[in-house]
Amino acid sequence: MDLIAIIGYVAAVATTSSFLPQLIKILRKRRAEDISLLMYLIFVSGITLWLIYGILVHEMPIIAANGVTLVIALAILILKLKYG
Amino acid sequence: MDLIAIIGYVAAVATTSSFLPQLIKILRKRRAEDISLLMYLIFVSGITLWLIYGILVHEMPIIAANGVTLVIALAILILKLKYG
Repeated sequence: MDLIAIIGYVAAVATTSSFLPQLIKILRKRRAEDISLLMYLIFVSGITLWLIYGILVHEMPIIAANGVTLVIALAILILKLKYG
Repeated sequence: MDLIAIIGYVAAVATTSSFLPQLIKILRKRRAEDISLLMYLIFVSGITLWLIYGILVHEMPIIAANGVTLVIALAILILKLKYG
C-alpha cells in the first residue's frame, strides 16, 4: 500500500469514527436538542451519493469510509427524531 | 463532465452544505451543549487529511468538498468551545 492510500485510510478512519462520540453522547444524555435535524437529513443523503461515487471510481477508502459513516449518521438521525 | 463526476459534485455539495444548518442553529440559539466536542476535534483532523488525499489523487470533488467542509466544521468547533 502506498502513502496516498495510507493517508486515505487514516482520513477515512478519522472522519468515520468522529461521529461515534456524537452517537454515544446522544445515547447517554438522551438529548439531541442542539443537533440540527436538517444537517443529518442532508448529510445522510450526501454520504449515500459519496458511497455510490466511491463504488464507481473504485476507490476503497471512499467506499469504506462512507459505508460505515452512513450507518452511524443514520443512527444519529433516528435518535434526533426520537429525542428531538 | 461525465456522470461519475456529476455524482461526486452533488455528493460534495450535499455533505459540505449539510454542516451549514448546524452552524446557523448554534449561532441563532447560542447553544451547543448537545454537540460532541470530541466529534468535531476528530472530524476536523480527518477532513484535513481528506483534503491532502484529494490533492494527491487529483480528485477535484474531494478537494472542493473537504476544503469548504473544513472551514464550516472549524467554525462549529470554535462555537462549541465558546458556547459549550
